[in-house]
Amino acid sequence: MVDLLVENAAAELTTYYYYTIMRCNLIGLEGEGIKEIAETARIEDRNHFEALVPRIYELGGGLPKDMKEFHDVSGCPPAYLPEDISDVNKILKVLVEAERCAVRQYTNICNLTAGKDHRTYDLALSILHEEIEHGSWFSEFLGEGPSGHFLRRGETSPFVSKFLK
Amino acid sequence: MVDLLVENAAAELTTYYYYTIMRCNLIGLEGEGIKEIAETARIEDRNHFEALVPRIYELGGGLPKDMKEFHDVSGCPPAYLPEDISDVNKILKVLVEAERCAVRQYTNICNLTAGKDHRTYDLALSILHEEIEHGSWFSEFLGEGPSGHFLRRGETSPFVSKFLK
Amino acid sequence: MVDLLVENAAAELTTYYYYTIMRCNLIGLEGEGIKEIAETARIEDRNHFEALVPRIYELGGGLPKDMKEFHDVSGCPPAYLPEDISDVNKILKVLVEAERCAVRQYTNICNLTAGKDHRTYDLALSILHEEIEHGSWFSEFLGEGPSGHFLRRGETSPFVSKFLK
Amino acid sequence: MVDLLVENAAAELTTYYYYTIMRCNLIGLEGEGIKEIAETARIEDRNHFEALVPRIYELGGGLPKDMKEFHDVSGCPPAYLPEDISDVNKILKVLVEAERCAVRQYTNICNLTAGKDHRTYDLALSILHEEIEHGSWFSEFLGEGPSGHFLRRGETSPFVSKFLK
Amino acid sequence: MVDLLVENAAAELTTYYYYTIMRCNLIGLEGEGIKEIAETARIEDRNHFEALVPRIYELGGGLPKDMKEFHDVSGCPPAYLPEDISDVNKILKVLVEAERCAVRQYTNICNLTAGKDHRTYDLALSILHEEIEHGSWFSEFLGEGPSGHFLRRGETSPFVSKFLK
Amino acid sequence: MVDLLVENAAAELTTYYYYTIMRCNLIGLEGEGIKEIAETARIEDRNHFEALVPRIYELGGGLPKDMKEFHDVSGCPPAYLPEDISDVNKILKVLVEAERCAVRQYTNICNLTAGKDHRTYDLALSILHEEIEHGSWFSEFLGEGPSGHFLRRGETSPFVSKFLK
Amino acid sequence: MVDLLVENAAAELTTYYYYTIMRCNLIGLEGEGIKEIAETARIEDRNHFEALVPRIYELGGGLPKDMKEFHDVSGCPPAYLPEDISDVNKILKVLVEAERCAVRQYTNICNLTAGKDHRTYDLALSILHEEIEHGSWFSEFLGEGPSGHFLRRGETSPFVSKFLK
Amino acid sequence: MVDLLVENAAAELTTYYYYTIMRCNLIGLEGEGIKEIAETARIEDRNHFEALVPRIYELGGGLPKDMKEFHDVSGCPPAYLPEDISDVNKILKVLVEAERCAVRQYTNICNLTAGKDHRTYDLALSILHEEIEHGSWFSEFLGEGPSGHFLRRGETSPFVSKFLK
Amino acid sequence: MVDLLVENAAAELTTYYYYTIMRCNLIGLEGEGIKEIAETARIEDRNHFEALVPRIYELGGGLPKDMKEFHDVSGCPPAYLPEDISDVNKILKVLVEAERCAVRQYTNICNLTAGKDHRTYDLALSILHEEIEHGSWFSEFLGEGPSGHFLRRGETSPFVSKFLK
Amino acid sequence: MVDLLVENAAAELTTYYYYTIMRCNLIGLEGEGIKEIAETARIEDRNHFEALVPRIYELGGGLPKDMKEFHDVSGCPPAYLPEDISDVNKILKVLVEAERCAVRQYTNICNLTAGKDHRTYDLALSILHEEIEHGSWFSEFLGEGPSGHFLRRGETSPFVSKFLK
Amino acid sequence: MVDLLVENAAAELTTYYYYTIMRCNLIGLEGEGIKEIAETARIEDRNHFEALVPRIYELGGGLPKDMKEFHDVSGCPPAYLPEDISDVNKILKVLVEAERCAVRQYTNICNLTAGKDHRTYDLALSILHEEIEHGSWFSEFLGEGPSGHFLRRGETSPFVSKFLK
Amino acid sequence: MVDLLVENAAAELTTYYYYTIMRCNLIGLEGEGIKEIAETARIEDRNHFEALVPRIYELGGGLPKDMKEFHDVSGCPPAYLPEDISDVNKILKVLVEAERCAVRQYTNICNLTAGKDHRTYDLALSILHEEIEHGSWFSEFLGEGPSGHFLRRGETSPFVSKFLK
Repeated sequence: MVDLLVENAAAELTTYYYYTIMRCNLIGLEGEGIKEIAETARIEDRNHFEALVPRIYELGGGLPKDMKEFHDVSGCPPAYLPEDISDVNKILKVLVEAERCAVRQYTNICNLTAGKDHRTYDLALSILHEEIEHGSWFSEFLGEGPSGHFLRRGETSPFVSKFLK
Repeated sequence: MVDLLVENAAAELTTYYYYTIMRCNLIGLEGEGIKEIAETARIEDRNHFEALVPRIYELGGGLPKDMKEFHDVSGCPPAYLPEDISDVNKILKVLVEAERCAVRQYTNICNLTAGKDHRTYDLALSILHEEIEHGSWFSEFLGEGPSGHFLRRGETSPFVSKFLK
Repeated sequence: MVDLLVENAAAELTTYYYYTIMRCNLIGLEGEGIKEIAETARIEDRNHFEALVPRIYELGGGLPKDMKEFHDVSGCPPAYLPEDISDVNKILKVLVEAERCAVRQYTNICNLTAGKDHRTYDLALSILHEEIEHGSWFSEFLGEGPSGHFLRRGETSPFVSKFLK
Repeated sequence: MVDLLVENAAAELTTYYYYTIMRCNLIGLEGEGIKEIAETARIEDRNHFEALVPRIYELGGGLPKDMKEFHDVSGCPPAYLPEDISDVNKILKVLVEAERCAVRQYTNICNLTAGKDHRTYDLALSILHEEIEHGSWFSEFLGEGPSGHFLRRGETSPFVSKFLK
Repeated sequence: MVDLLVENAAAELTTYYYYTIMRCNLIGLEGEGIKEIAETARIEDRNHFEALVPRIYELGGGLPKDMKEFHDVSGCPPAYLPEDISDVNKILKVLVEAERCAVRQYTNICNLTAGKDHRTYDLALSILHEEIEHGSWFSEFLGEGPSGHFLRRGETSPFVSKFLK
Repeated sequence: MVDLLVENAAAELTTYYYYTIMRCNLIGLEGEGIKEIAETARIEDRNHFEALVPRIYELGGGLPKDMKEFHDVSGCPPAYLPEDISDVNKILKVLVEAERCAVRQYTNICNLTAGKDHRTYDLALSILHEEIEHGSWFSEFLGEGPSGHFLRRGETSPFVSKFLK
Repeated sequence: MVDLLVENAAAELTTYYYYTIMRCNLIGLEGEGIKEIAETARIEDRNHFEALVPRIYELGGGLPKDMKEFHDVSGCPPAYLPEDISDVNKILKVLVEAERCAVRQYTNICNLTAGKDHRTYDLALSILHEEIEHGSWFSEFLGEGPSGHFLRRGETSPFVSKFLK
Repeated sequence: MVDLLVENAAAELTTYYYYTIMRCNLIGLEGEGIKEIAETARIEDRNHFEALVPRIYELGGGLPKDMKEFHDVSGCPPAYLPEDISDVNKILKVLVEAERCAVRQYTNICNLTAGKDHRTYDLALSILHEEIEHGSWFSEFLGEGPSGHFLRRGETSPFVSKFLK
Repeated sequence: MVDLLVENAAAELTTYYYYTIMRCNLIGLEGEGIKEIAETARIEDRNHFEALVPRIYELGGGLPKDMKEFHDVSGCPPAYLPEDISDVNKILKVLVEAERCAVRQYTNICNLTAGKDHRTYDLALSILHEEIEHGSWFSEFLGEGPSGHFLRRGETSPFVSKFLK
Repeated sequence: MVDLLVENAAAELTTYYYYTIMRCNLIGLEGEGIKEIAETARIEDRNHFEALVPRIYELGGGLPKDMKEFHDVSGCPPAYLPEDISDVNKILKVLVEAERCAVRQYTNICNLTAGKDHRTYDLALSILHEEIEHGSWFSEFLGEGPSGHFLRRGETSPFVSKFLK
Repeated sequence: MVDLLVENAAAELTTYYYYTIMRCNLIGLEGEGIKEIAETARIEDRNHFEALVPRIYELGGGLPKDMKEFHDVSGCPPAYLPEDISDVNKILKVLVEAERCAVRQYTNICNLTAGKDHRTYDLALSILHEEIEHGSWFSEFLGEGPSGHFLRRGETSPFVSKFLK
Repeated sequence: MVDLLVENAAAELTTYYYYTIMRCNLIGLEGEGIKEIAETARIEDRNHFEALVPRIYELGGGLPKDMKEFHDVSGCPPAYLPEDISDVNKILKVLVEAERCAVRQYTNICNLTAGKDHRTYDLALSILHEEIEHGSWFSEFLGEGPSGHFLRRGETSPFVSKFLK
């Protein structure tokens, strides 16, 4: 279980980095609308990293001493900026793909821990809620049908914040 | 007068419902800009319903016991989602039409009560302000010229809120 | 017009005093429910006094130098505590009567000023809103039918407060 | 699953409407105590409607285009005002019955989704908490024994609010 | 002096426990009104315990190592729930008696320390204020005449809070 | 003791009224500086009235049923506006005289209750603090030497507010 | 109507500019008292400009493309600093004159729109309230008798702010 | 299930008492660091008691009428202060042992209720989160390896607070 | 130096005026994204005018008595609305040009004052930061590459606000 | 009495200065724990100086015109930093000694004024509370047994602050 | 550099003391206007002392162990109260002189550190801003021409506060 | 210049990662004191990364597409956890070394940009302030003499936050 959590912590921190680059490249009239969404997802992914670390240590695990090693254990492939950065749809597809990998990962952890490791289950479920919402924000822009969602109003991480206090 | 107020309360609550559906169907890059406006109008129409009810009872009236009957007394025709929900302009036209009907209704009540029923006049005027602003937000998107308006910054219902405290 | 305003200022301040006594005498399980309502009405009547004074001076008037003289110009008869203070219904009737006299007074001022003295009109209308609500709170307890109202949630004087800033 | 959620969304919105009528009819010294409770339950039921809608769209469902059709799919029978509206106990029984139907509905959804559809499970559980508390508030008044509960202090929807941010 | 303070700390903590039971048993339409008062008194008695402990240690004393021993040194007899818990008046009498014992205890400490142990005097006086107010809330319900008091609006322990910061 | 408290409650409420008149007559460049001080003293005197009333009822007393009778029991002579209202110094002298009478009154109550009626003592002392400060504000303007005081910054009644929560 | 609103918007913005100069020239012990008043009036006049603009566009009008042209359509003559800027009274007279012109303008608009153009009426009335208060602040300093007014405590534009949200 | 909840409510309240004693005995340079942690755990254990009580009554149970009997049903042995109170490590071991017993208890309740009694499960899980964190704070001081945790920043009971609103 | 500051104060106030017109003409789906940016820049330019005025007077300068003369000393040419107001790109070019002129002006002042007039340097640098950010917001829309910026979140003028307190 | 107050005001201001030096010299792992306590005591002693000054002037006294003369009238000997500043225990002894001298001084003033000079008594008592708490914080570190105290949470000067508003 | 900072820290603390005396002696109608300004300057000078101390220790310096020695190293002569304390102008001249000495001192430090010791430069510049503003407030009262300044609105030390967090 | 900024952004983000590991390994009684400091430094270093990124893009630069490449351009060597993680002093030395490298880097940037690139200068100076303070916190623990600093009270990044709004 600890290994899975480390893998996801790595995915979250690298996603945070790649989101930083992508947010900067979302420009022009088209990119503006996605910019605010990307910013919220970026901040919340960083929160996920912060929330996963204490559980890793509680379970006797730890972060690798070398950040590059940490980068490579990531449970999801890195969300590299596409070659053609002027095409907002291509950036969107990278983002949606990253979020869907995350949804699969946390669903998996939820399945493994439900009714057994109650605390890890609740942590994974809380992150899962936010990843599903990130995914639905971006998928709307790709014309995949309504998701019923709205951007965060006010505070970020409504589900994970209880693990950060 | 009470009947007119009940008619408008019904129009507000049904509009609230149809706005909920429409906001969910405003997707893609084009719909994003209108989404936030539709959400504000949706919340404020619900506030109008809440503000009208006490005045109805003060004047000796009441709401129908059957919600479907209430639905049918609405002073304005229901703002059904257009067939082609992928065309943002068509949704916009439905929204503008709904707001203009509301503006006519409340202007009418203001005309009837000015200088006579002071409390009802002030209530109708407060709602009228907000309906005019909703209308002007949507009409801008249809290219009908500048309205000089800005979305709500911070709190909703700046005019009606005094009736909700 | 100034004389009318002074009369009402006097009515508000004396009502504030008599409400203080009555609130203290609303005891036992029955009185508890009315206590909070009486307290809100008491505070808001004092606010009405405070809001009327500046308009009196703006129009060239003033308060009488003797407080007892002021007491006697009151536009409504004083809301004396009934003899039998253990009967909550009797206290309620005194309170409802006081509020209804106030509603008549401010409706009268509104009628006289509508379309003419715009500032006095708006002041009287703001006070009228609050007096109507006070009346409807108490009348409900006397079983005179639903009024659709709720006690203040949070701040007092939602209508008059703009004259107190 | 989606159909179940739509049924409950319908139940919540219609309950919101019928609660509005009932709250207005809770008058007199006896009704005052229940009024505040009914108001909180009314607001929280509306919040449940708002929280269910995005999950319905996420799962590929949607709201019916006609509000009256929506009214009729409600998973619980409508909480009609009893004939004798002067009998607070009769109103209370209608309210308790409505809440208990809701508790059964959400318990059912929890049973179906536990360990499987983690996100829907957490949403249904959050609503279930609030429905159980509504039920226990009203049942106390019917003399069915202590429930240990207190009215909300401050904010509403302590469980569901994380789905509304 | 220290022994007196320990006795009262014990009385406060046990009262906190018995209030918890009693608040749960205050049900039905009659009990509702007293519930909020009992809750405030319960919280403030716990605050008194918290405020007394540091002074006990400052004066060289301490709490007994066994909580049951602590329970038995209480300066006032425990406020046991009466046999007939459906009779609100009987519960009220237990509550009033408990508060009056507390008033006597703290008046005694004030008498002993006035002009001599300035800090203990101020602590006892602060608690005395709150106990007198608790007593007057409950005595009103027993029909012992007006007390002029109102429930706390907003924060609890307006007198003792300076010892808790 | 109760009679003394009623006398002072009367003095505070009448002072509140006469301060209202005086504040309106403090005009011109000279009066401006005193206006803010007079306003603070006016509000705090009203707070004193509000804080005295519950203690009067706790001790078994009550307010007179007739407000004019109440006016006449005032422990201090009414602070009538001087004839020559254009002379700020004359108004100041009236104000200082009123405050000094209040200081004497509350010092007297403190002397009578110290070490005996602890609660009344603390109430009188709290009001005394504020009256001394009112007096020192006005005396500075009359050139009677420095008082070291500053106007309230932020909230009013720093001493009495604990009796108003 | 639109032309009248543009004239007043111009008057407000130019007044804002001339107030800026005048506030800087209100120095010395005498000027200090008026400085804060002038600052509040300056900010509120700017708010009036901001509130008038959207209504102008709603009614199909617009601002002139050249700011100097805008300056010249002002409905009131510019409030030039008097030659002798060391004489506070002369500055005061300019200020009072400017405010009185504004009061006449908005009273005129109110008269023209009462019972007809409800939204413009409410906007003009809201501005009128604030202009009357500005005028009464300054007139007091000129010894024209009491106005009963006090400076803003806390927020500015208590009447117009609802049009700025 | 109810018996288990009562046992744990007893454990929480007695722990609250013994923590109070222990916190007072954590002195000197070494004890300072642990003091703040012990204080947070003490407050949160009291919150657990408060959160468990309503669920006990909802399920038809209740607290024992005698507090000493309540003390003895505690699910965990009382956390008595060790003999040698000058040895911080010994105090720490008592604290860690108490927290670990609590973790076992709530894990047990979670196991019993998962997928069955959804509301009790969520309550027990919320308390479990906080008990695990208490345990990890203290175990760090005993040199049992990193736990990755930080003291509360700001509010207490981030998990249980939703049951206290 | 003073002349340079007056020139820039003039540029800021006129820009504020022309921005007001332009913001009103940014309509339709394309204009919406830029509207919020233009509004922030408009408010911050007004803040710059307010921050420059005191420094001008400190250095012995002053504003021209005639606003039209002030308009003409502006250090940058007025940002007139382009002829074809339906072309958002043309409006954008005017805005970017205006901001770039401002960046050149304040860079110049910084160069002249660095290490010499410390206070003017810090003021000019603070304004420069905000002008650079305005420019980068607009340039992104023109497709001139990423600027890494985000709109203000929350308060405006993060750099200049220290001069406005 | 005034002389005593001046002596103590001098002691407070000089203590504030010497505390500043000592806080800077509390370094290393041992000093960290005491640093926060010393900072709070430092700020509160400055508050005592601020609270004493107005009472000195009220009683007709004043501060010496020469600060060095003021330094020498201090009622307690200055808290010079010990020679060996690396020994935290030696610094602690200086601090405890300073606080104990203060406790003796204010106890003395309380004894002299109890029941006579009510205002000075309350001021001295308020300061005494805070000095006792300072003393007990430091004495714990010297191993003189538990004091039951905790550092300030949130605001400073919970007792004296009412004299600073 | 360190010596210069110690000199100025001494000047700030002694100014704080002399300002305390002077503020108390600013009485009567004339002194009132300056009182608030003197109070703000007094508080901000104390803040300067607090902000300088850490930089002194960072650079390896320290405060003298004897406060009187510290008093004598002050970089500016002490701002003794003038003989004739009834003449507000004489007090004003002392205050202006003190502020101008401070402006010269900090300008000197800025000149010495610009481009070299970046941190000390920024600290000195921040204090310089506030000293210039103090000076301009007082100089206005002496009739030395407009300074364009306004008193602090809300928080103090807008420039130095970043060094105090 | 851009390369230097990228190097430092890399150093900040990697430091953020290594601080996360180190904070988890600061355990036991000794580590507790440093834990809070390390946490603040960790958060503020992340803020520095966030503040540097926009300036990098403004100047035409960008972040490397590969996070591992970014890791290797870091201007300072990575702050690897020492082998012997149980020795707090060794961890401290790593931390101090990292902060001192950062101080040298930003001092260098300040030297290069002073008087030339005003915006980059101000950004680097703001970060430099915070790095100097981080260094002085840790160096105190190593017994290198007093630094005069205190931990952050309340918000983090008092200098850099203006670049993050």
